[in-house]
Amino acid sequence: MPERFFGHISGYPEGSWFESRAALAEVGLHRPLVAGISGTESEGADSIVLSGGYEDDEDLGNEIVYTGHGGRDQDTGRQVANQNLSRGNLALAKSKLQGLSVRVIRGSTHKSDYAPSTGYRYDGLYRVEDYWQERGRAGYYIWRYRLVKIVEDEISAFSRVTESSGAYSAPRRQETTILRIVRDTKQARRIKALYDYRCQVCGTRLESNAGPYAEAAHIRPLGIPHNGSDAINNLLCLCPNHHVLFDYGTFSIADDLSLLGIEGTLTIVMQHEIHIENLRYHREHYSPMQNESG
Amino acid sequence: MPERFFGHISGYPEGSWFESRAALAEVGLHRPLVAGISGTESEGADSIVLSGGYEDDEDLGNEIVYTGHGGRDQDTGRQVANQNLSRGNLALAKSKLQGLSVRVIRGSTHKSDYAPSTGYRYDGLYRVEDYWQERGRAGYYIWRYRLVKIVEDEISAFSRVTESSGAYSAPRRQETTILRIVRDTKQARRIKALYDYRCQVCGTRLESNAGPYAEAAHIRPLGIPHNGSDAINNLLCLCPNHHVLFDYGTFSIADDLSLLGIEGTLTIVMQHEIHIENLRYHREHYSPMQNESG
Repeated sequence: MPERFFGHISGYPEGSWFESRAALAEVGLHRPLVAGISGTESEGADSIVLSGGYEDDEDLGNEIVYTGHGGRDQDTGRQVANQNLSRGNLALAKSKLQGLSVRVIRGSTHKSDYAPSTGYRYDGLYRVEDYWQERGRAGYYIWRYRLVKIVEDEISAFSRVTESSGAYSAPRRQETTILRIVRDTKQARRIKALYDYRCQVCGTRLESNAGPYAEAAHIRPLGIPHNGSDAINNLLCLCPNHHVLFDYGTFSIADDLSLLGIEGTLTIVMQHEIHIENLRYHREHYSPMQNESG
Repeated sequence: MPERFFGHISGYPEGSWFESRAALAEVGLHRPLVAGISGTESEGADSIVLSGGYEDDEDLGNEIVYTGHGGRDQDTGRQVANQNLSRGNLALAKSKLQGLSVRVIRGSTHKSDYAPSTGYRYDGLYRVEDYWQERGRAGYYIWRYRLVKIVEDEISAFSRVTESSGAYSAPRRQETTILRIVRDTKQARRIKALYDYRCQVCGTRLESNAGPYAEAAHIRPLGIPHNGSDAINNLLCLCPNHHVLFDYGTFSIADDLSLLGIEGTLTIVMQHEIHIENLRYHREHYSPMQNESG
Protein backbone atom coordinates (compact mmCIF):
# COMPACT_ATOMS: atom_id res chain seq x y z
CA MET A 1 0.00 0.00 0.00
CA PRO A 2 1.67 3.26 -1.09
CA GLU A 3 1.70 6.21 1.26
CA ARG A 4 -1.34 8.46 1.06
CA PHE A 5 -0.76 11.20 -1.49
CA PHE A 6 -1.80 14.79 -0.89
CA GLY A 7 -2.08 17.22 -3.78
CA HIS A 8 -2.68 17.06 -7.53
CA ILE A 9 -2.46 13.68 -9.22
CA SER A 10 -0.07 13.88 -12.16
CA GLY A 11 -1.84 13.62 -15.51
CA TYR A 12 -5.28 14.60 -14.16
CA PRO A 13 -5.42 18.39 -13.94
CA GLU A 14 -8.26 20.39 -12.46
CA GLY A 15 -11.36 20.08 -14.64
CA SER A 16 -10.71 16.42 -15.55
CA TRP A 17 -13.97 14.51 -15.97
CA PHE A 18 -14.78 10.92 -14.99
CA GLU A 19 -17.73 8.71 -15.66
CA SER A 20 -17.84 6.85 -12.36
CA ARG A 21 -16.47 6.48 -8.83
CA ALA A 22 -14.53 3.47 -10.10
CA ALA A 23 -12.79 5.66 -12.69
CA LEU A 24 -11.88 8.21 -9.98
CA ALA A 25 -10.53 5.44 -7.78
CA GLU A 26 -8.47 3.91 -10.57
CA VAL A 27 -6.42 7.05 -11.18
CA GLY A 28 -6.05 7.75 -7.46
CA LEU A 29 -8.06 10.97 -7.29
CA HIS A 30 -10.42 9.43 -4.73
CA ARG A 31 -9.71 5.86 -3.73
CA PRO A 32 -12.81 4.76 -1.76
CA LEU A 33 -15.69 3.59 -3.96
CA VAL A 34 -18.50 4.63 -1.62
CA ALA A 35 -17.21 6.86 1.22
CA GLY A 36 -17.29 10.62 0.59
CA ILE A 37 -14.10 11.24 2.59
CA SER A 38 -10.81 9.54 1.73
CA GLY A 39 -8.34 9.44 4.59
CA THR A 40 -7.51 8.11 8.02
CA GLU A 41 -7.53 9.55 11.52
CA SER A 42 -3.73 9.50 11.69
CA GLU A 43 -2.81 10.70 8.18
CA GLY A 44 -5.58 13.20 7.45
CA ALA A 45 -7.96 13.38 4.48
CA ASP A 46 -6.60 13.61 0.94
CA SER A 47 -9.86 13.92 -1.02
CA ILE A 48 -13.62 14.28 -0.77
CA VAL A 49 -16.47 13.71 -3.20
CA LEU A 50 -19.48 16.02 -3.09
CA SER A 51 -22.48 14.03 -4.24
CA GLY A 52 -25.40 15.66 -2.51
CA GLY A 53 -25.67 13.34 0.44
CA TYR A 54 -26.18 16.00 3.11
CA GLU A 55 -28.91 18.57 3.24
CA ASP A 56 -26.73 20.96 5.22
CA ASP A 57 -23.95 21.34 2.65
CA GLU A 58 -23.37 24.77 1.14
CA ASP A 59 -21.36 25.22 -2.04
CA LEU A 60 -20.20 28.68 -3.10
CA GLY A 61 -17.63 27.45 -5.59
CA ASN A 62 -14.38 28.60 -4.03
CA GLU A 63 -15.78 28.04 -0.56
CA ILE A 64 -17.63 24.97 0.57
CA VAL A 65 -19.29 24.25 3.89
CA TYR A 66 -19.17 20.48 4.04
CA THR A 67 -20.95 18.20 6.49
CA GLY A 68 -19.22 15.19 8.06
CA HIS A 69 -20.55 11.63 8.03
CA GLY A 70 -22.36 9.41 10.51
CA GLY A 71 -25.59 9.44 12.49
CA ARG A 72 -27.82 8.89 9.49
CA ASP A 73 -30.40 6.17 9.06
CA GLN A 74 -29.18 3.72 6.40
CA ASP A 75 -32.61 3.38 4.79
CA THR A 76 -34.07 6.88 4.91
CA GLY A 77 -30.80 8.86 4.90
CA ARG A 78 -32.19 11.06 7.67
CA GLN A 79 -30.06 12.30 10.57
CA VAL A 80 -31.07 10.22 13.60
CA ALA A 81 -28.07 10.67 15.92
CA ASN A 82 -25.15 13.01 16.66
CA GLN A 83 -22.03 12.74 14.49
CA ASN A 84 -18.71 11.95 16.19
CA LEU A 85 -15.28 13.40 15.50
CA SER A 86 -13.94 10.05 14.31
CA ARG A 87 -13.04 8.25 11.05
CA GLY A 88 -13.44 10.56 8.04
CA ASN A 89 -14.59 13.45 10.23
CA LEU A 90 -11.42 13.26 12.30
CA ALA A 91 -9.35 12.82 9.12
CA LEU A 92 -10.64 16.15 7.79
CA ALA A 93 -9.94 17.81 11.15
CA LYS A 94 -6.42 16.38 11.00
CA SER A 95 -5.98 17.93 7.55
CA LYS A 96 -6.57 21.34 9.09
CA LEU A 97 -4.23 20.60 11.98
CA GLN A 98 -1.47 19.49 9.62
CA GLY A 99 -2.21 22.06 6.90
CA LEU A 100 -2.82 19.42 4.23
CA SER A 101 -4.54 20.08 0.91
CA VAL A 102 -7.72 18.16 0.03
CA ARG A 103 -8.73 17.21 -3.52
CA VAL A 104 -12.36 18.15 -4.16
CA ILE A 105 -14.48 16.20 -6.66
CA ARG A 106 -18.03 17.23 -7.52
CA GLY A 107 -20.57 14.67 -8.72
CA SER A 108 -23.68 15.30 -10.82
CA THR A 109 -25.96 14.37 -7.91
CA HIS A 110 -24.45 17.15 -5.77
CA LYS A 111 -27.09 19.86 -5.31
CA SER A 112 -25.18 22.95 -6.42
CA ASP A 113 -24.77 25.28 -9.37
CA TYR A 114 -21.18 24.02 -9.50
CA ALA A 115 -22.05 20.34 -10.00
CA PRO A 116 -21.27 18.76 -13.40
CA SER A 117 -24.30 17.69 -15.47
CA THR A 118 -23.12 14.07 -15.54
CA GLY A 119 -20.42 11.99 -13.88
CA TYR A 120 -17.66 13.48 -11.70
CA ARG A 121 -15.28 16.41 -12.12
CA TYR A 122 -12.02 17.03 -10.27
CA ASP A 123 -12.19 20.65 -9.07
CA GLY A 124 -8.76 21.19 -7.57
CA LEU A 125 -7.22 21.59 -4.13
CA TYR A 126 -8.86 23.09 -1.08
CA ARG A 127 -7.65 23.61 2.45
CA VAL A 128 -9.68 22.98 5.58
CA GLU A 129 -9.94 26.49 6.97
CA ASP A 130 -12.09 25.65 9.98
CA TYR A 131 -14.27 22.93 11.50
CA TRP A 132 -16.92 23.02 14.18
CA GLN A 133 -20.08 21.37 15.50
CA GLU A 134 -23.62 22.58 15.11
CA ARG A 135 -27.15 21.32 15.30
CA GLY A 136 -28.23 20.32 11.80
CA ARG A 137 -31.75 20.78 10.44
CA ALA A 138 -32.79 17.49 12.02
CA GLY A 139 -31.72 18.69 15.51
CA TYR A 140 -28.66 16.46 15.94
CA TYR A 141 -25.08 17.63 16.24
CA ILE A 142 -23.19 17.45 12.98
CA TRP A 143 -19.54 18.28 12.20
CA ARG A 144 -18.98 20.92 9.59
CA TYR A 145 -15.92 21.99 7.63
CA ARG A 146 -15.20 25.18 5.77
CA LEU A 147 -13.08 24.38 2.72
CA VAL A 148 -11.42 27.21 0.82
CA LYS A 149 -9.92 26.80 -2.61
CA ILE A 150 -6.16 27.08 -2.78
CA VAL A 151 -5.24 29.81 -5.24
CA GLU A 152 -3.14 28.33 -8.03
CA ASP A 153 -0.97 31.45 -8.22
CA GLU A 154 0.30 30.69 -4.78
CA ILE A 155 1.04 27.10 -5.64
CA SER A 156 2.97 28.07 -8.74
CA ALA A 157 4.81 30.84 -6.90
CA PHE A 158 5.89 28.34 -4.30
CA SER A 159 6.74 25.82 -6.96
CA ARG A 160 8.96 28.32 -8.74
CA VAL A 161 10.75 29.18 -5.54
CA THR A 162 11.50 25.61 -4.66
CA GLU A 163 12.74 24.83 -8.13
CA SER A 164 15.11 27.76 -8.26
CA SER A 165 16.98 26.94 -5.07
CA GLY A 166 20.07 25.27 -6.38
CA ALA A 167 22.81 25.64 -3.82
CA TYR A 168 21.09 23.73 -1.04
CA SER A 169 19.09 20.54 -1.04
CA ALA A 170 15.84 21.93 -2.39
CA PRO A 171 12.36 20.78 -1.35
CA ARG A 172 11.25 18.21 -3.87
CA ARG A 173 8.90 19.01 -6.72
CA GLN A 174 6.16 16.80 -5.31
CA GLU A 175 5.85 19.02 -2.27
CA THR A 176 4.73 21.97 -4.38
CA THR A 177 1.06 21.26 -3.94
CA ILE A 178 1.50 22.33 -0.34
CA LEU A 179 1.02 26.02 0.29
CA ARG A 180 3.51 28.49 1.57
CA ILE A 181 0.95 29.50 4.17
CA VAL A 182 0.81 26.07 5.71
CA ARG A 183 4.25 24.88 4.69
CA ASP A 184 3.51 21.30 5.43
CA THR A 185 6.00 18.78 4.17
CA LYS A 186 6.97 15.30 5.13
CA GLN A 187 9.99 16.75 6.89
CA ALA A 188 7.78 19.11 8.87
CA ARG A 189 5.59 16.22 9.95
CA ARG A 190 8.71 14.24 10.81
CA ILE A 191 10.22 16.86 13.08
CA LYS A 192 6.96 17.38 14.90
CA ALA A 193 6.72 13.64 15.52
CA LEU A 194 10.37 13.55 16.66
CA TYR A 195 9.56 15.99 19.48
CA ASP A 196 6.06 14.61 20.08
CA TYR A 197 4.70 18.09 19.21
CA ARG A 198 6.55 19.73 22.12
CA CYS A 199 8.25 23.09 21.62
CA GLN A 200 12.04 22.69 21.67
CA VAL A 201 12.32 25.94 23.60
CA CYS A 202 9.56 25.81 26.23
CA GLY A 203 8.22 22.25 26.10
CA THR A 204 4.65 23.44 25.40
CA ARG A 205 2.39 20.96 23.60
CA LEU A 206 -0.86 22.46 22.40
CA GLU A 207 -3.81 20.05 22.42
CA SER A 208 -6.82 20.08 20.11
CA ASN A 209 -9.74 17.69 19.63
CA ALA A 210 -7.96 16.38 16.51
CA GLY A 211 -4.60 15.83 18.22
CA PRO A 212 -1.56 17.88 19.24
CA TYR A 213 -0.49 21.01 17.35
CA ALA A 214 3.03 22.29 16.76
CA GLU A 215 4.82 24.21 14.01
CA ALA A 216 7.88 23.34 11.99
CA ALA A 217 10.08 26.44 11.81
CA HIS A 218 12.70 26.84 9.11
CA ILE A 219 16.00 28.09 10.52
CA ARG A 220 17.25 29.47 7.18
CA PRO A 221 14.04 30.56 5.44
CA LEU A 222 12.69 28.90 2.33
CA GLY A 223 12.31 30.91 -0.85
CA ILE A 224 14.04 33.82 -2.51
CA PRO A 225 16.59 35.05 -1.63
CA HIS A 226 17.43 32.79 1.30
CA ASN A 227 16.85 29.44 -0.42
CA GLY A 228 16.97 27.46 2.81
CA SER A 229 16.33 23.75 2.52
CA ASP A 230 13.32 21.81 3.70
CA ALA A 231 15.51 19.18 5.35
CA ILE A 232 15.28 18.27 9.00
CA ASN A 233 18.73 19.83 9.59
CA ASN A 234 17.05 23.18 8.86
CA LEU A 235 13.93 22.68 10.99
CA LEU A 236 12.86 23.22 14.57
CA CYS A 237 9.69 22.04 16.32
CA LEU A 238 8.27 25.13 18.01
CA CYS A 239 5.07 26.38 19.59
CA PRO A 240 3.48 29.29 17.66
CA ASN A 241 4.80 31.82 20.21
CA HIS A 242 8.42 30.75 19.90
CA HIS A 243 8.00 30.45 16.13
CA VAL A 244 7.06 34.16 16.00
CA LEU A 245 9.97 35.11 18.26
CA PHE A 246 12.43 33.07 16.20
CA ASP A 247 11.21 34.46 12.86
CA TYR A 248 11.62 38.02 14.16
CA GLY A 249 15.10 37.26 15.52
CA THR A 250 14.09 38.00 19.11
CA PHE A 251 16.05 34.89 19.94
CA SER A 252 18.59 32.92 18.00
CA ILE A 253 20.75 29.88 18.58
CA ALA A 254 24.53 29.73 19.07
CA ASP A 255 26.82 27.16 17.46
CA ASP A 256 26.81 25.22 20.76
CA LEU A 257 22.97 25.24 20.64
CA SER A 258 22.60 27.59 23.61
CA LEU A 259 19.83 30.18 23.24
CA LEU A 260 20.71 33.82 22.58
CA GLY A 261 18.26 36.56 23.54
CA ILE A 262 16.04 34.50 25.84
CA GLU A 263 16.51 32.29 28.87
CA GLY A 264 16.45 28.52 28.72
CA THR A 265 18.02 25.75 26.70
CA LEU A 266 17.08 24.10 23.45
CA THR A 267 15.85 20.53 23.73
CA ILE A 268 17.57 18.33 21.15
CA VAL A 269 17.05 14.65 20.48
CA MET A 270 19.85 12.51 19.09
CA GLN A 271 18.18 11.88 15.72
CA HIS A 272 18.00 15.61 15.04
CA GLU A 273 21.23 16.97 13.61
CA ILE A 274 21.00 20.72 12.95
CA HIS A 275 23.40 22.16 10.39
CA ILE A 276 25.46 24.89 12.01
CA GLU A 277 25.53 26.93 8.77
CA ASN A 278 21.75 27.27 9.05
CA LEU A 279 22.04 28.59 12.62
CA ARG A 280 24.73 31.05 11.45
CA TYR A 281 22.53 32.20 8.58
CA HIS A 282 19.68 32.92 10.96
CA ARG A 283 21.91 34.80 13.42
CA GLU A 284 23.62 36.79 10.68
CA HIS A 285 20.34 37.89 9.07
CA TYR A 286 17.87 38.05 11.92
CA SER A 287 19.96 38.79 15.02
CA PRO A 288 23.26 40.31 13.88
CA MET A 289 23.94 41.91 17.27
CA GLN A 290 23.47 38.62 19.04
CA ASN A 291 25.79 37.11 16.49
CA GLU A 292 28.53 39.53 17.51
CA SER A 293 28.15 38.78 21.21
CA GLY A 294 27.39 35.08 20.71
CA MET B 1 -4.14 65.37 8.26
CA PRO B 2 -6.30 62.35 7.39
CA GLU B 3 -5.43 58.95 8.81
CA ARG B 4 -2.97 56.95 6.76
CA PHE B 5 -4.84 54.77 4.28
CA PHE B 6 -3.81 51.18 3.58
CA GLY B 7 -5.07 49.41 0.47
CA HIS B 8 -6.27 50.37 -2.99
CA ILE B 9 -7.08 54.01 -3.66
CA SER B 10 -10.57 54.31 -5.09
CA GLY B 11 -10.58 55.35 -8.76
CA TYR B 12 -6.97 54.28 -9.40
CA PRO B 13 -6.92 50.54 -10.06
CA GLU B 14 -3.84 48.41 -10.53
CA GLY B 15 -2.11 49.34 -13.79
CA SER B 16 -2.92 53.06 -13.52
CA TRP B 17 -0.14 55.18 -15.02
CA PHE B 18 1.23 58.52 -13.83
CA GLU B 19 3.64 60.97 -15.34
CA SER B 20 5.38 62.10 -12.18
CA ARG B 21 5.85 61.68 -8.45
CA ALA B 22 3.71 64.78 -8.01
CA ALA B 23 0.84 63.09 -9.86
CA LEU B 24 1.18 59.99 -7.63
CA ALA B 25 1.15 62.18 -4.53
CA GLU B 26 -1.88 64.15 -5.64
CA VAL B 27 -4.15 61.10 -5.85
CA GLY B 28 -2.77 59.64 -2.63
CA LEU B 29 -1.10 56.55 -4.08
CA HIS B 30 2.28 57.65 -2.68
CA ARG B 31 2.31 60.91 -0.77
CA PRO B 32 6.03 61.71 -0.30
CA LEU B 33 7.62 63.45 -3.31
CA VAL B 34 11.13 62.09 -2.83
CA ALA B 35 11.19 59.27 -0.24
CA GLY B 36 10.76 55.73 -1.58
CA ILE B 37 8.85 54.55 1.50
CA SER B 38 5.64 56.24 2.65
CA GLY B 39 4.82 55.63 6.30
CA THR B 40 5.77 56.17 9.91
CA GLU B 41 7.35 54.06 12.61
CA SER B 42 4.08 53.87 14.56
CA GLU B 43 1.56 53.38 11.72
CA GLY B 44 3.51 51.22 9.28
CA ALA B 45 4.22 51.77 5.57
CA ASP B 46 1.32 52.21 3.13
CA SER B 47 3.27 52.48 -0.15
CA ILE B 48 6.69 52.25 -1.79
CA VAL B 49 8.09 53.46 -5.09
CA LEU B 50 10.66 51.32 -6.88
CA SER B 51 12.87 53.64 -8.87
CA GLY B 52 16.16 51.84 -9.12
CA GLY B 53 17.93 53.48 -6.24
CA TYR B 54 19.47 50.37 -4.73
CA GLU B 55 21.80 47.98 -6.43
CA ASP B 56 20.67 45.12 -4.20
CA ASP B 57 17.00 45.14 -5.17
CA GLU B 58 15.59 42.06 -6.89
CA ASP B 59 12.31 42.20 -8.76
CA LEU B 60 10.60 38.99 -9.83
CA GLY B 61 7.23 40.57 -10.50
CA ASN B 62 5.04 38.97 -7.85
CA GLU B 63 7.94 38.86 -5.43
CA ILE B 64 10.26 41.72 -4.71
CA VAL B 65 13.31 41.82 -2.49
CA TYR B 66 13.49 45.47 -1.54
CA THR B 67 16.33 47.29 0.19
CA GLY B 68 15.71 49.80 2.97
CA HIS B 69 17.07 53.34 3.04
CA GLY B 70 19.96 55.10 4.76
CA GLY B 71 23.73 54.82 4.92
CA ARG B 72 24.33 56.08 1.40
CA ASP B 73 26.54 58.95 0.38
CA GLN B 74 24.37 61.83 -0.84
CA ASP B 75 26.66 62.65 -3.75
CA THR B 76 27.80 59.28 -5.06
CA GLY B 77 24.80 57.19 -3.92
CA ARG B 78 27.20 54.54 -2.65
CA GLN B 79 26.61 52.62 0.59
CA VAL B 80 29.04 54.08 3.14
CA ALA B 81 27.47 53.02 6.44
CA ASN B 82 25.10 50.46 7.98
CA GLN B 83 21.35 51.02 7.66
CA ASN B 84 19.28 51.28 10.82
CA LEU B 85 15.84 49.85 11.56
CA SER B 86 14.28 53.29 11.86
CA ARG B 87 12.04 55.67 9.87
CA GLY B 88 10.86 54.06 6.61
CA ASN B 89 12.75 50.85 7.37
CA LEU B 90 10.94 50.45 10.69
CA ALA B 91 7.64 51.43 9.02
CA LEU B 92 7.99 48.51 6.58
CA ALA B 93 8.85 46.16 9.45
CA LYS B 94 5.75 47.42 11.28
CA SER B 95 3.66 46.58 8.21
CA LYS B 96 4.72 42.97 8.55
CA LEU B 97 4.06 42.99 12.29
CA GLN B 98 0.57 44.41 11.79
CA GLY B 99 -0.20 42.50 8.60
CA LEU B 100 -0.76 45.66 6.56
CA SER B 101 -0.84 45.79 2.76
CA VAL B 102 1.66 48.01 0.90
CA ARG B 103 0.92 49.71 -2.44
CA VAL B 104 3.78 49.11 -4.89
CA ILE B 105 4.58 51.62 -7.63
CA ARG B 106 7.26 50.98 -10.25
CA GLY B 107 9.07 53.85 -11.94
CA SER B 108 10.78 53.82 -15.34
CA THR B 109 14.22 54.23 -13.73
CA HIS B 110 13.73 51.00 -11.75
CA LYS B 111 16.13 48.38 -13.14
CA SER B 112 13.75 45.52 -13.84
CA ASP B 113 11.86 43.83 -16.66
CA TYR B 114 8.72 44.91 -14.84
CA ALA B 115 9.45 48.64 -14.92
CA PRO B 116 7.25 50.85 -17.14
CA SER B 117 9.01 52.48 -20.11
CA THR B 118 8.13 55.97 -18.87
CA GLY B 119 6.64 57.53 -15.75
CA TYR B 120 5.16 55.48 -12.89
CA ARG B 121 2.71 52.59 -12.72
CA TYR B 122 0.66 51.43 -9.74
CA ASP B 123 1.19 47.65 -9.53
CA GLY B 124 -1.16 46.64 -6.73
CA LEU B 125 -0.92 45.47 -3.14
CA TYR B 126 1.87 43.46 -1.59
CA ARG B 127 2.42 42.16 1.89
CA VAL B 128 5.72 42.23 3.75
CA GLU B 129 6.41 38.55 4.09
CA ASP B 130 9.76 38.84 5.83
CA TYR B 131 12.54 41.29 6.67
CA TRP B 132 16.14 40.79 7.69
CA GLN B 133 19.63 42.28 7.68
CA GLU B 134 22.47 41.35 5.43
CA ARG B 135 25.77 42.71 4.17
CA GLY B 136 25.10 44.47 0.87
CA ARG B 137 27.53 44.46 -2.05
CA ALA B 138 29.38 47.40 -0.51
CA GLY B 139 30.03 45.46 2.72
CA TYR B 140 27.67 47.40 5.00
CA TYR B 141 24.59 46.02 6.70
CA ILE B 142 21.38 46.79 4.86
CA TRP B 143 17.77 45.95 5.74
CA ARG B 144 15.91 43.89 3.20
CA TYR B 145 12.24 43.10 2.76
CA ARG B 146 10.56 40.33 0.85
CA LEU B 147 7.30 41.63 -0.59
CA VAL B 148 4.80 39.18 -2.02
CA LYS B 149 1.89 40.22 -4.19
CA ILE B 150 -1.52 39.78 -2.60
CA VAL B 151 -3.59 37.53 -4.84
CA GLU B 152 -6.69 39.42 -5.96
CA ASP B 153 -8.81 36.27 -5.77
CA GLU B 154 -8.27 36.24 -2.04
CA ILE B 155 -9.20 39.88 -1.71
CA SER B 156 -12.40 39.39 -3.68
CA ALA B 157 -13.23 36.19 -1.83
CA PHE B 158 -12.90 38.04 1.46
CA SER B 159 -14.83 40.97 0.07
CA ARG B 160 -17.66 38.72 -1.00
CA VAL B 161 -17.81 37.12 2.40
CA THR B 162 -17.97 40.38 4.23
CA GLU B 163 -20.62 41.77 1.92
CA SER B 164 -22.89 38.79 2.23
CA SER B 165 -23.04 38.82 6.02
CA GLY B 166 -26.32 40.54 6.63
CA ALA B 167 -27.59 39.48 10.03
CA TYR B 168 -24.72 40.90 12.04
CA SER B 169 -22.79 44.11 11.81
CA ALA B 170 -20.50 43.16 8.95
CA PRO B 171 -16.90 44.30 8.55
CA ARG B 172 -16.97 47.38 6.38
CA ARG B 173 -16.27 47.33 2.67
CA GLN B 174 -13.14 49.43 3.07
CA GLU B 175 -11.49 46.69 5.07
CA THR B 176 -11.53 44.32 2.12
CA THR B 177 -8.06 45.23 0.98
CA ILE B 178 -6.80 43.39 4.04
CA LEU B 179 -6.22 39.70 3.60
CA ARG B 180 -7.96 36.88 5.32
CA ILE B 181 -4.54 35.57 6.24
CA VAL B 182 -3.60 38.61 8.23
CA ARG B 183 -7.09 39.82 9.12
CA ASP B 184 -5.91 43.20 10.18
CA THR B 185 -8.57 45.78 10.79
CA LYS B 186 -8.77 48.96 12.76
CA GLN B 187 -10.69 47.04 15.43
CA ALA B 188 -7.93 44.45 15.61
CA ARG B 189 -5.33 47.17 16.07
CA ARG B 190 -7.57 48.79 18.68
CA ILE B 191 -7.97 45.67 20.82
CA LYS B 192 -4.25 44.96 20.74
CA ALA B 193 -3.56 48.51 21.90
CA LEU B 194 -6.21 48.19 24.63
CA TYR B 195 -4.29 45.28 26.18
CA ASP B 196 -0.88 46.67 25.31
CA TYR B 197 -0.26 43.53 23.22
CA ARG B 198 -0.60 41.24 26.26
CA CYS B 199 -2.51 37.98 25.96
CA GLN B 200 -5.79 38.17 27.88
CA VAL B 201 -5.29 34.57 29.02
CA CYS B 202 -1.61 34.30 30.00
CA GLY B 203 -0.30 37.89 29.95
CA THR B 204 2.43 37.05 27.44
CA ARG B 205 3.70 39.95 25.33
CA LEU B 206 5.92 38.89 22.43
CA GLU B 207 8.63 41.38 21.54
CA SER B 208 10.19 41.98 18.15
CA ASN B 209 12.66 44.55 16.84
CA ALA B 210 9.68 46.38 15.28
CA GLY B 211 7.58 46.39 18.45
CA PRO B 212 5.25 44.04 20.33
CA TYR B 213 3.26 41.30 18.57
CA ALA B 214 -0.18 39.99 19.48
CA GLU B 215 -3.14 38.58 17.58
CA ALA B 216 -6.76 39.68 17.47
CA ALA B 217 -8.93 36.57 17.75
CA HIS B 218 -12.54 36.59 16.59
CA ILE B 219 -14.84 34.91 19.11
CA ARG B 220 -17.58 34.17 16.56
CA PRO B 221 -15.63 33.62 13.31
CA LEU B 222 -15.82 35.95 10.34
CA GLY B 223 -17.11 34.64 7.03
CA ILE B 224 -19.55 32.03 5.85
CA PRO B 225 -21.45 30.52 7.56
CA HIS B 226 -20.69 32.09 10.94
CA ASN B 227 -20.82 35.73 9.85
CA GLY B 228 -19.30 37.03 13.08
CA SER B 229 -18.69 40.75 13.26
CA ASP B 230 -15.38 42.55 13.24
CA ALA B 231 -16.38 44.69 16.22
CA ILE B 232 -14.40 44.86 19.43
CA ASN B 233 -17.24 43.03 21.27
CA ASN B 234 -16.28 39.99 19.17
CA LEU B 235 -12.51 40.21 19.62
CA LEU B 236 -9.90 39.03 22.08
CA CYS B 237 -6.24 39.99 22.32
CA LEU B 238 -4.34 36.69 22.47
CA CYS B 239 -0.84 35.33 22.05
CA PRO B 240 -0.50 32.94 19.08
CA ASN B 241 -0.59 29.89 21.38
CA HIS B 242 -3.87 30.80 23.03
CA HIS B 243 -5.26 31.87 19.66
CA VAL B 244 -4.68 28.33 18.36
CA LEU B 245 -6.21 26.79 21.49
CA PHE B 246 -9.25 29.07 21.30
CA ASP B 247 -9.83 28.44 17.59
CA TYR B 248 -9.76 24.67 18.17
CA GLY B 249 -12.13 24.97 21.13
CA THR B 250 -9.59 23.56 23.60
CA PHE B 251 -10.76 26.34 25.85
CA SER B 252 -13.81 28.54 25.78
CA ILE B 253 -15.28 31.29 27.92
CA ALA B 254 -18.35 31.13 30.16
CA ASP B 255 -20.99 33.85 30.37
CA ASP B 256 -19.33 35.10 33.60
CA LEU B 257 -16.01 35.30 31.67
CA SER B 258 -14.41 32.42 33.57
CA LEU B 259 -12.28 30.10 31.43
CA LEU B 260 -13.55 26.61 30.54
CA GLY B 261 -11.09 23.88 29.64
CA ILE B 262 -7.94 25.54 30.99
CA GLU B 263 -6.80 27.07 34.26
CA GLY B 264 -6.61 30.80 34.85
CA THR B 265 -8.83 33.84 34.41
CA LEU B 266 -9.45 36.16 31.50
CA THR B 267 -8.05 39.67 31.88
CA ILE B 268 -10.68 42.24 30.92
CA VAL B 269 -10.34 46.00 30.85
CA MET B 270 -13.36 48.25 31.40
CA GLN B 271 -13.45 49.62 27.85
CA HIS B 272 -13.80 46.09 26.44
CA GLU B 273 -17.39 44.89 26.47
CA ILE B 274 -17.69 41.37 25.04
CA HIS B 275 -21.09 40.34 23.70
CA ILE B 276 -22.27 37.24 25.51
CA GLU B 277 -23.98 35.89 22.37
CA ASN B 278 -20.55 35.69 20.76
CA LEU B 279 -19.17 33.66 23.68
CA ARG B 280 -22.20 31.37 23.46
CA TYR B 281 -21.72 30.93 19.71
CA HIS B 282 -18.10 29.89 20.26
CA ARG B 283 -18.99 27.43 23.05
CA GLU B 284 -21.90 25.95 21.10
CA HIS B 285 -19.82 25.37 17.95
CA TYR B 286 -16.31 24.77 19.19
CA SER B 287 -16.71 23.32 22.70
CA PRO B 288 -20.22 21.87 22.96
CA MET B 289 -19.28 19.60 25.87
CA GLN B 290 -17.87 22.49 27.83
CA ASN B 291 -21.05 24.35 27.07
CA GLU B 292 -23.08 21.62 28.74
CA SER B 293 -20.95 21.60 31.87
CA GLY B 294 -20.33 25.35 31.85
